[in-house]
Amino acid sequence: MINYPTKKTVSKKEKKVSVKNRGMRFEKLIDEANAFYLSMDKAVIHKKPTPIQTVQVDYPSRSKAKIKEAYYKTPSTTDYNGVYQGRYLDFDVKETRSRTSFPLKNIHEHQIEHLQRIEAHGGYAFLLIHLAAVDTTYLMPYSELRPFLKRSKTGRKSMTLDEIMETGYAIKEGYRPRIDYLKAVDAWFGTMKNG
Amino acid sequence: MINYPTKKTVSKKEKKVSVKNRGMRFEKLIDEANAFYLSMDKAVIHKKPTPIQTVQVDYPSRSKAKIKEAYYKTPSTTDYNGVYQGRYLDFDVKETRSRTSFPLKNIHEHQIEHLQRIEAHGGYAFLLIHLAAVDTTYLMPYSELRPFLKRSKTGRKSMTLDEIMETGYAIKEGYRPRIDYLKAVDAWFGTMKNG
Repeated sequence: MINYPTKKTVSKKEKKVSVKNRGMRFEKLIDEANAFYLSMDKAVIHKKPTPIQTVQVDYPSRSKAKIKEAYYKTPSTTDYNGVYQGRYLDFDVKETRSRTSFPLKNIHEHQIEHLQRIEAHGGYAFLLIHLAAVDTTYLMPYSELRPFLKRSKTGRKSMTLDEIMETGYAIKEGYRPRIDYLKAVDAWFGTMKNG
Repeated sequence: MINYPTKKTVSKKEKKVSVKNRGMRFEKLIDEANAFYLSMDKAVIHKKPTPIQTVQVDYPSRSKAKIKEAYYKTPSTTDYNGVYQGRYLDFDVKETRSRTSFPLKNIHEHQIEHLQRIEAHGGYAFLLIHLAAVDTTYLMPYSELRPFLKRSKTGRKSMTLDEIMETGYAIKEGYRPRIDYLKAVDAWFGTMKNG
């Protein structure tokens, strides 16, 4: 007999989802979108594996290496990149539960440097920010983000939700894929052609 | 006293370098080239981390996760990608010691599919093939490789060194970076403009 959890057996602890896991759930939706785009031959975008520092590796057989001690390293780039309509896309995925603002400290210094470089070399750098409080995701071009990063050095350390809504491109949640972020990329590209 | 190895203490075993390690040595030169390009603000190209499947992870402290059991996974893409002059580059690095040919089985099926997709979406897909026997590296565009992959289904399972030299772009070894492969990318792009 398979022991399906009933309402009674689901503990309070299990219901709680850590901040990290919440972020991972949103990442999973982006992975699903990428798998969908790949299957529909719409774009080739992959998540980069998390870099690890191996300390001890065993070779029980010639073909199979077993990592026995390793640690996660801080990535030096963003998590996602790929090609869409001949253009290089590069982005990271962020989430906030706040009802008022998105803290800019969520974007690490090395990620900012990376996004800056990508833009300088003709790539398309952005963030996908999920605002859990309003259950909406925004594509935020790095070029739009930059003034707020600059402001954070002397003033406010976050973007208000209003600022995100004004400067970003809203992604309506759909059916397949749930987060069809390339539609927002299209909208962004559209403003470039006209601008 | 530091125990430097003398001629006597270096065993025959230590002198031998496995096929895998030889390949890694060439990869290291490409990593060096990428670091150089980044420092000179010429391109943003990174090696993707090797994907691993974690089985057991300990959390001795909140901030530090210790991976206690994990295995290397087969990557579903190539190892390198990035942006150069607004173009999406995607490639893998190969090496052969053979004096006569490059076995096409060195290119895994999922890598072929990936390179094919990249090309279809307007990216620039290629291999960097180091011919150790003649100590020269060639950039091989996927478009040039394809007919030989097709041939391998019914006929010869490899490209001869002559074929590689005829269809690829030679990369002369230099000083800094040693493998200045973007010069070959430039040569390749040049033929596109004229062709």
